[in-house]
Amino acid sequence: MRVGLLTGGGDVPGLNAAIRAVVKRGEGDHGHSIIGFRNGWKGVVDGDVMPLTRQHIRNVLATGGTLLGTARYHPHADDGGMDAVLATLEAERIEALICIGGDGTLKAASRIAEAGVRIVGIPKTIDNDVWGTDRSIGFDTAVTIATEAIDRIHTTAESHNRVMVVEVMGRSAGWIAVTSGIAGGAELVLAPEAPFDITRVEKFLKHRHRAHASFSIVVVAEGAVPAEGTAMHYETQVGQFGEIVAGAIGERLKGEIERRTGFDTRVTVLGHTQRGGTPTAADRILASRFGVAAIDAINAGRSDVMTAIRGERIELVELQEVAGKVQHVPDDLLMVAGALA
Amino acid sequence: MRVGLLTGGGDVPGLNAAIRAVVKRGEGDHGHSIIGFRNGWKGVVDGDVMPLTRQHIRNVLATGGTLLGTARYHPHADDGGMDAVLATLEAERIEALICIGGDGTLKAASRIAEAGVRIVGIPKTIDNDVWGTDRSIGFDTAVTIATEAIDRIHTTAESHNRVMVVEVMGRSAGWIAVTSGIAGGAELVLAPEAPFDITRVEKFLKHRHRAHASFSIVVVAEGAVPAEGTAMHYETQVGQFGEIVAGAIGERLKGEIERRTGFDTRVTVLGHTQRGGTPTAADRILASRFGVAAIDAINAGRSDVMTAIRGERIELVELQEVAGKVQHVPDDLLMVAGALA
Amino acid sequence: MRVGLLTGGGDVPGLNAAIRAVVKRGEGDHGHSIIGFRNGWKGVVDGDVMPLTRQHIRNVLATGGTLLGTARYHPHADDGGMDAVLATLEAERIEALICIGGDGTLKAASRIAEAGVRIVGIPKTIDNDVWGTDRSIGFDTAVTIATEAIDRIHTTAESHNRVMVVEVMGRSAGWIAVTSGIAGGAELVLAPEAPFDITRVEKFLKHRHRAHASFSIVVVAEGAVPAEGTAMHYETQVGQFGEIVAGAIGERLKGEIERRTGFDTRVTVLGHTQRGGTPTAADRILASRFGVAAIDAINAGRSDVMTAIRGERIELVELQEVAGKVQHVPDDLLMVAGALA
Amino acid sequence: MRVGLLTGGGDVPGLNAAIRAVVKRGEGDHGHSIIGFRNGWKGVVDGDVMPLTRQHIRNVLATGGTLLGTARYHPHADDGGMDAVLATLEAERIEALICIGGDGTLKAASRIAEAGVRIVGIPKTIDNDVWGTDRSIGFDTAVTIATEAIDRIHTTAESHNRVMVVEVMGRSAGWIAVTSGIAGGAELVLAPEAPFDITRVEKFLKHRHRAHASFSIVVVAEGAVPAEGTAMHYETQVGQFGEIVAGAIGERLKGEIERRTGFDTRVTVLGHTQRGGTPTAADRILASRFGVAAIDAINAGRSDVMTAIRGERIELVELQEVAGKVQHVPDDLLMVAGALA
Repeated sequence: MRVGLLTGGGDVPGLNAAIRAVVKRGEGDHGHSIIGFRNGWKGVVDGDVMPLTRQHIRNVLATGGTLLGTARYHPHADDGGMDAVLATLEAERIEALICIGGDGTLKAASRIAEAGVRIVGIPKTIDNDVWGTDRSIGFDTAVTIATEAIDRIHTTAESHNRVMVVEVMGRSAGWIAVTSGIAGGAELVLAPEAPFDITRVEKFLKHRHRAHASFSIVVVAEGAVPAEGTAMHYETQVGQFGEIVAGAIGERLKGEIERRTGFDTRVTVLGHTQRGGTPTAADRILASRFGVAAIDAINAGRSDVMTAIRGERIELVELQEVAGKVQHVPDDLLMVAGALA
Repeated sequence: MRVGLLTGGGDVPGLNAAIRAVVKRGEGDHGHSIIGFRNGWKGVVDGDVMPLTRQHIRNVLATGGTLLGTARYHPHADDGGMDAVLATLEAERIEALICIGGDGTLKAASRIAEAGVRIVGIPKTIDNDVWGTDRSIGFDTAVTIATEAIDRIHTTAESHNRVMVVEVMGRSAGWIAVTSGIAGGAELVLAPEAPFDITRVEKFLKHRHRAHASFSIVVVAEGAVPAEGTAMHYETQVGQFGEIVAGAIGERLKGEIERRTGFDTRVTVLGHTQRGGTPTAADRILASRFGVAAIDAINAGRSDVMTAIRGERIELVELQEVAGKVQHVPDDLLMVAGALA
Repeated sequence: MRVGLLTGGGDVPGLNAAIRAVVKRGEGDHGHSIIGFRNGWKGVVDGDVMPLTRQHIRNVLATGGTLLGTARYHPHADDGGMDAVLATLEAERIEALICIGGDGTLKAASRIAEAGVRIVGIPKTIDNDVWGTDRSIGFDTAVTIATEAIDRIHTTAESHNRVMVVEVMGRSAGWIAVTSGIAGGAELVLAPEAPFDITRVEKFLKHRHRAHASFSIVVVAEGAVPAEGTAMHYETQVGQFGEIVAGAIGERLKGEIERRTGFDTRVTVLGHTQRGGTPTAADRILASRFGVAAIDAINAGRSDVMTAIRGERIELVELQEVAGKVQHVPDDLLMVAGALA
Repeated sequence: MRVGLLTGGGDVPGLNAAIRAVVKRGEGDHGHSIIGFRNGWKGVVDGDVMPLTRQHIRNVLATGGTLLGTARYHPHADDGGMDAVLATLEAERIEALICIGGDGTLKAASRIAEAGVRIVGIPKTIDNDVWGTDRSIGFDTAVTIATEAIDRIHTTAESHNRVMVVEVMGRSAGWIAVTSGIAGGAELVLAPEAPFDITRVEKFLKHRHRAHASFSIVVVAEGAVPAEGTAMHYETQVGQFGEIVAGAIGERLKGEIERRTGFDTRVTVLGHTQRGGTPTAADRILASRFGVAAIDAINAGRSDVMTAIRGERIELVELQEVAGKVQHVPDDLLMVAGALA
């Protein structure tokens, strides 16, 4: 069988582990030909192929990035994109297509499946906001990196009597913020799931510093928002199309906190360091399991599904169910972050 | 309420994060007095107490070991042990007791609960063999350390044309071996769940080195055993009471492989490095959630239960159900390790 | 003998290792009483003392920050500061004072020495700009952290076709930029020692991307400056007193590069993560050697000197010689960074 | 110019960084052709060549091992070896040869230089025992790995009341043992430079545990030896040719300590993990500087020299001076290890 493979969206640590597992399971155990497409859906549109054999996956397990390249291109949002995709798949005689990506890539995958192509998705995103799976590839590494950064800032904060604002990624979900905030021992975590009241932030910090502390770490998700009706002095800068701008909420918080408390406040924006480097053991294991499961799903005749992990079990969920939903941080996890402040 | 707290068995990274969460949630949010016992059940027997306040848990979140100390002492296996425990709990007016430990500690906890003491257990063990929970505290860190070691050995193996045997911990379960084997890209993983046939190991290595490879990494769980009827030249050394001896199976494998294949074979026994050092973000999060959940269980009037994680949810399971069972690596995970060899 | 000890200036990883060595060598081997002052010179002025014994230095070797606290206060720049320092030293019957700090702290130390106090300095700064010593405490850790960040960004850059600007610390010296640029494989390193021509940066990037590359990493020291006469579209923001502002040169470069090349350009400001966390082995060894050497210098009757490392040898240099000089990156190291681009 | 390049002896982290620097400086800046030989001197004897271009060195900077392979083969110790080397160099029209290796490789290099070939050596060895240079490639990484392991063992030792023996590499020099012992806070360091008296080890441990401690970490170099005349109950196992056997001295010490003190004693042999994995920033910088310096030495017409670092300066030393000497740990560094116990 000729099985296509692509990685779409922003890259994350663990993509190469997934590619390796697809090739090892597909070619090695089942004799499939694995046809890689370069740069995500863009490569499918352009017919940019790269047959993958055991040679290509030597020594990639522990590497970041993706050997196939990636792009933030969505065929269903582009005139003629879908037709070009189908034309390439036919020209390359692709019998099944494995798409590793976040919600954008998976939505495109679902559309292609509707057109009759056999499709299996694999969820990856450091934001962990893909619905239907406990974890997506890249999340554990991002949390690990954010936690290390908070650990480091912790020691500098201690010696200096100040407020340190650490802005982490996550788009409209607070997964990285909440988990790294717990793991790093942040005094306050602001996540999109619980819009914040700046006057309560102010009171918390004033009380804490008056009572006993000489420093505080505030972890803020890039997608955190003030509660409606909150009067703030600064506005969060947004992008041209209303999108999140790295550093915007962090800088805004810094301004508000300094103005309200008088405490010396510094902001650190972790940025792209969160999506690169060696994947953690947990991400490599997850990616390996997903890669094997995707081939097995194809062998079992499944389509329009996504590999998912629930507890210790690998499952398949319908791509239709996943599309358009965002997995948010559950209340009990938000509560733990609050309880340990 | 006066809540007792102890850590029993071998220490693992993440114990201090759990202690911190118990104190923060118990003292900070609910006004309980948290009474620590030093050195596990031994401290309860001896009345060796250490009241825990916010002072004691400063800067411990990211540290390994346990600030309470621990010991491998089981009161139910000691004459008068149970009586001494109950006497101390009464003398200290302990209204509930949180026991952080592996199966030995949790079995003792269950016995104490039968005697009418309110008990909540928290599972910790790098072996991940506690029944009823997807994960125990310490496992993620141990896998991370083992994977780093395999990564390192990988580069030395490549340059040298040889077989590298890496022995990891896990007692009678293969969790560390299988997951670090997948994450580290081992060519062969030997776990207790699937007794190995040494002649198949021999054939696999000969075939692999003849075909294309100049090195192979074999990860072996300390509890791995040959299949019945397998004729081997060496015996695995066992301890005085039949217990697993560190390095025994690793050395035995080395001997067999060298004798059968003629390949230069080296063995590395990871040993105690697997149970020390800074806990991973995942272990700190798990420990923090368990600590909060243990206090919440006590507040809710629960007893004779253990905190557990299933998927993303924290649950409580009956200690009675847990006792005497071993959680083994499921077949699908063993299969992934085999598929990626 | 009563020996005073303080840590001044910004904190860096390795301070606790130095404190530990002073206490172990001073108290343990020579029977001195070690009197710590909290928060650098501020604590001397305020008489804020903390006698240090073996108890205080347990488990601090691998920790970041400083157990004595620190402050950016300079007594010689404050009315009555010097008198208050001398008064406290007399009141506490301090016979010798060990000052761990950067150029500000060491300058103050030299002034105090002139007033007749026996003083030994220990150089610490992640910037490595203290004259007279190959290395200062904290530098190796900062370079390690910056290199890890560049490694991570490397993998994300590869998949994305863009220019990544990484701004690192270093004040008016380019040590962190040049060494982490070499270690991380940056395509371009901009250091204060070699003012840059923005049109050459533009040409380099255009040529590189036209020829073969899809990404470039530019490491810029926070203190990097354009060559005189260079026409740039943006200005580097400076602080109220003309001081370096974190992120200023990074943002400016991003603006110039995007405007001139049209390449998607992102900036990451490493910030405070560079000065926190566990010190590297090299920093712990250096700090330990300096701590021992400081006590030995006092025992030998030396004063107004600073511990220094030259090659493998620990030496003492006159504080007078150190004051007012900045150790810059030598030309041959700048050349290596250029040669490997 | 056609420049040959080989890596000989055991592999160490940083070899690829050196290869990369040779290619970038040699091919990129000076237009030389870089001809790699596979598997050290063995590849020269066999004529196993691999022309190296910029393609081969992409993404290798941070990787362990050597892309050229290596072997522990010495042509001057093999009949006809030297002639075969000279024949290949002539057949391949090699005008200069860069040899990256430890004392064995460098001794062979010196012999080849005597035969009229232009030769530049680059020192690499985790043991740091090459004479004439402060540091060799790989040492900093090995110390870092050993220190991490000691850190981890430290936390497990604290909870358990025991003696932990950690055996590290180093052959007949104690560099890794002494530096990782200082960095990891070992209670006792046994190095070949100071033969140990087992009765003093016994007394030290007994005194320490009686006085206040519940655990001790003893770091022992694989080449450590008892002082002459010391009566010990066990013998250190040696290899067939009298060579050091991994684990031998560690196990012997464990036996002696248990027998003499009655303390539960465990031994961890770090083994091959010390020579693999990602090189530290310091090793990458050193390797990069050495690679550039080797090409520059060739361009300057130098031969029979080795690149060396002394303090912050790169220098060239005569290979003749280096051969047959071992760089040992200086007394002042041994003293620091003792002072901080």
